[in-house]
Amino acid sequence: MIYCDYNATTPCAPEVVKAMHQYWSEDFGNPSSAHLAGRIAARAVSNARLQVAELVNCYPGEIYFTTGATESNNLVFLGLLLSSSQNKKRIVISSIEHKSVLEPSLFLAKRGFEVVFLPVSNDGVIDIDKAKKIITADTALVSVHAANNEIGTLQPIEEICNYAHDIGAVFHTDAAQAFGKTDLNFTDIGCDLASVSSHKIYGPKGIGALYVNGGISQWRWSFPLHGGAQESGLRPGTLNTPAIVGFGVASLLATKNLPSEKLFINNLRTYLEKKLLERFPNCVIHARNAKRVPGTISVAFPGVPADMLIDNLSSLCVGKGSACSSGTISRSHVLLAMGCEPEVADETIRISLGRYSTLVEMDQIVEMISSAIAVIRQ
Amino acid sequence: MIYCDYNATTPCAPEVVKAMHQYWSEDFGNPSSAHLAGRIAARAVSNARLQVAELVNCYPGEIYFTTGATESNNLVFLGLLLSSSQNKKRIVISSIEHKSVLEPSLFLAKRGFEVVFLPVSNDGVIDIDKAKKIITADTALVSVHAANNEIGTLQPIEEICNYAHDIGAVFHTDAAQAFGKTDLNFTDIGCDLASVSSHKIYGPKGIGALYVNGGISQWRWSFPLHGGAQESGLRPGTLNTPAIVGFGVASLLATKNLPSEKLFINNLRTYLEKKLLERFPNCVIHARNAKRVPGTISVAFPGVPADMLIDNLSSLCVGKGSACSSGTISRSHVLLAMGCEPEVADETIRISLGRYSTLVEMDQIVEMISSAIAVIRQ
Repeated sequence: MIYCDYNATTPCAPEVVKAMHQYWSEDFGNPSSAHLAGRIAARAVSNARLQVAELVNCYPGEIYFTTGATESNNLVFLGLLLSSSQNKKRIVISSIEHKSVLEPSLFLAKRGFEVVFLPVSNDGVIDIDKAKKIITADTALVSVHAANNEIGTLQPIEEICNYAHDIGAVFHTDAAQAFGKTDLNFTDIGCDLASVSSHKIYGPKGIGALYVNGGISQWRWSFPLHGGAQESGLRPGTLNTPAIVGFGVASLLATKNLPSEKLFINNLRTYLEKKLLERFPNCVIHARNAKRVPGTISVAFPGVPADMLIDNLSSLCVGKGSACSSGTISRSHVLLAMGCEPEVADETIRISLGRYSTLVEMDQIVEMISSAIAVIRQ
Repeated sequence: MIYCDYNATTPCAPEVVKAMHQYWSEDFGNPSSAHLAGRIAARAVSNARLQVAELVNCYPGEIYFTTGATESNNLVFLGLLLSSSQNKKRIVISSIEHKSVLEPSLFLAKRGFEVVFLPVSNDGVIDIDKAKKIITADTALVSVHAANNEIGTLQPIEEICNYAHDIGAVFHTDAAQAFGKTDLNFTDIGCDLASVSSHKIYGPKGIGALYVNGGISQWRWSFPLHGGAQESGLRPGTLNTPAIVGFGVASLLATKNLPSEKLFINNLRTYLEKKLLERFPNCVIHARNAKRVPGTISVAFPGVPADMLIDNLSSLCVGKGSACSSGTISRSHVLLAMGCEPEVADETIRISLGRYSTLVEMDQIVEMISSAIAVIRQ
């Protein structure tokens, strides 16, 4: 089996599995407990917070552990919804956001908020000039992801953030797909809020973070979840020490490996794209000329429905559109927003490479796709 | 170190750690992905759902994975809050609920809901006759936990549930502290909703479930969290396969071990209480005559502040009040609701025993407490 769905989820790095081990049954205490077992766990949590903060260049006190980017995104939108003191009712998001931003926005749209979408170019990048016209003074929140999950395009978030701030809006970025794949400096970007997930960077599932610029005292809205005072009240519930430790080690590895890994994965992608274009001269590689995270290839094979292609790729794991939404396959809103024809969208698969991808696999991928297409065409 | 804080969290059973292992780096796929890696993970999730359902005697389709009881409780209360169609604004909870029910209730109280508390006897049990007067026809939701986290008392939830239904209210129980410790049959109880956590039953942290009687089609309110369609839309976010697998195995073990474990832990508690009363004849064991889950001892040593006692018990891990709320020590609302004097509440520690407690430890606990009290009295 060749795994090419790193944008959906990644395997845990061996170092991560090893680091978590002692926290299952030995140092398993509740970090909120005052006793020895609790204090041992609390120290591990503090250490991991430092490791995560280092990867995105912020203070550890600006990192709040959540169960992942989906929850972090929801905390931002629910917080806004539940804040009765909030007068500005306009929310601006990009038209190619992940469902965990799109759906909370649409939920708010049914509850008195106005949701406006930033258009993207044919290459899947936000036009900053158009954005400036849409981000008006009555905007409460601008949310634009750092990198797209389907096509990999990097967005001009620093510029959009600056403009949002000039006009008095809060800026949030869902950074799940850029995190660990490209240099991501939250302090330099200047964003107020950012969401990340551990399982996209070879850490465990079920853990992630919400970055809050300046820490909890700068949080503008209600806390949606209530219970114990964990994470300064922002996210109650027993802290998941083993997963937090794993997330910390995954961040440490990412910090260390990022320069070489970016280059390595980018080279693999360049090679694979070249091979695909040689074998299938009429295939369409979306956003090929845009700045992208390394590793993501969104490619359509004319005349070959993606569903059929995936069904015939029994030992090649690739995605169609976004794989995150529980087996439901619907036409990609990302590709449509880029002006892609519906039939081309339906022919698009996502190949996403990662740390454990190899050059040998790239040739195998081309052969596997070639064989599958031959079967379909018969 | 002797660990006696099983009500705060438990170590993972070795069987759980072993079962999770292959899902970190081998079968790590996203269960929502259509490809082979995804399907392998999805099968593991289905299997675990069966195992959890068996422990509480319900259909697997009535179990929705969440990140734990705190989140499950919040989904219930936030769902009610966000449902614009909801006319009834009265919420009835017991006066000794966990913070993850209490705090969401108080949040709703600031947003147009009326929150009313059910009183408890000196033994920490809800008086059903008083409850019937408080649960009025304008009640939307009744939420009463199955067992209390601090004193271990079991509540008459089946009777309260029946009465709530007679009057047209939804009944929810936070079953986190009864789950795996006592027979808990959701179908027999007839509750509409119930919350449980894996890490209280020797499974991993960061995973739990919301039971919905009849499944999602019977869910009355809004879904608070939005994103992918995981868990039928009730809880979005990439499914945490390893933790779900661990939760499943922990449930399987609990189903198997429950009859013998209840007896074993109950015997340990009876022995320890006897020894404590012999050594400290004036100590106060709260709710001693009430029906309790095995293993929980809430005990006050007159003249000995609990904070000081815990500080002097360097190798004995016990709790003071509820340990769940991040190091903040405040006077127990549970003990106060039972009519306990504030000074006695301040002298109360919680000793909670579990699967790996031993008879030898019981004698050591008495000696450790005895030495600590001697040091404090010097």
